[in-house]
Amino acid sequence: MAKLNICVLRLGHREVRDKRVTTHLFLAARAFGADKVMYSGRRDKKLEERIEKVVETWGGVFEVEYQRDWRKTVESWRTEDWEVTHLTMYGLPIQDVIPAIRQSHKDKLVIVGGAKVHGGVFELADWNVSVTSQPHSEISALCIFLHELFQGKELARTFGNAARRIIPQAKGKKVMRRKSGDFLP
Amino acid sequence: MAKLNICVLRLGHREVRDKRVTTHLFLAARAFGADKVMYSGRRDKKLEERIEKVVETWGGVFEVEYQRDWRKTVESWRTEDWEVTHLTMYGLPIQDVIPAIRQSHKDKLVIVGGAKVHGGVFELADWNVSVTSQPHSEISALCIFLHELFQGKELARTFGNAARRIIPQAKGKKVMRRKSGDFLP
Repeated sequence: MAKLNICVLRLGHREVRDKRVTTHLFLAARAFGADKVMYSGRRDKKLEERIEKVVETWGGVFEVEYQRDWRKTVESWRTEDWEVTHLTMYGLPIQDVIPAIRQSHKDKLVIVGGAKVHGGVFELADWNVSVTSQPHSEISALCIFLHELFQGKELARTFGNAARRIIPQAKGKKVMRRKSGDFLP
Repeated sequence: MAKLNICVLRLGHREVRDKRVTTHLFLAARAFGADKVMYSGRRDKKLEERIEKVVETWGGVFEVEYQRDWRKTVESWRTEDWEVTHLTMYGLPIQDVIPAIRQSHKDKLVIVGGAKVHGGVFELADWNVSVTSQPHSEISALCIFLHELFQGKELARTFGNAARRIIPQAKGKKVMRRKSGDFLP
């Protein structure tokens, strides 16, 4: 089976108010196995730079892209045969629908709402999925979705070409840094 | 088996900078099955009010409490026989340690770091646990920890005495509101 591609689209980013939440969301997307993130709303070059800096340090291949028009973006990805999942507290419970989503083997575009989600998003999505029907966070919704999609295998993922790597410890911190090709403590 | 009690302690909250992230963290704690959250750093009454408002609307029993001295708090919960888990990207992989944590049946105090985590936290914790060894978010780390601890059963949890309840839909939104004891659309 070919590798499943995952792209996350964050709607309606607000530069000041959402700064840290969108950063956490994009880092969670990367850590839990997405390949790319896109966002609509306000263009925020500092956000993009923060994410690019993390990729440089911690490795892997991961893109950030601004999209002015979320609807055109979703429609064009749909015509490329990507399956669209919208994470929303109003959707169908993840535990009921994740087996079918997993089984489709299509690449996934995962839409994560912002402040006010346009009703059209519910219509454009193949799946409207809830992670609990309770209010919490787009960050927790996204990482549980990816964790369930990959059935936990994403936890053991390694990131190529990293400048820094953590060696897990029972107590304290151990970080290796790459110097001239090799990792050194 | 008695119900497992879970309390989350957020270290070093900063009133302005962490406002939304701590709110999301506490809502995720509630949605994924914790009973209580505590925080150190700056006292933030608006944060407490926001969480209390959510509990009023969406139900369940859930407390928020400020703790000026995190070390005293952790030490006193330890003497009450709570098991202390510290979520940190430097810790042991969750997939390796969660079976042992699950098996202990002790109530859990889960510590989630803030800006700069004091080295003493690593020493006080029974477990230093990482959810991937990559940078992401305390929100994703916490919800994956609780999701793994409860083995996904928390997703189907219901919250008693709610004023509002979502009826999951394939498309669109359906919310029931309690009026004079009954739920009405």
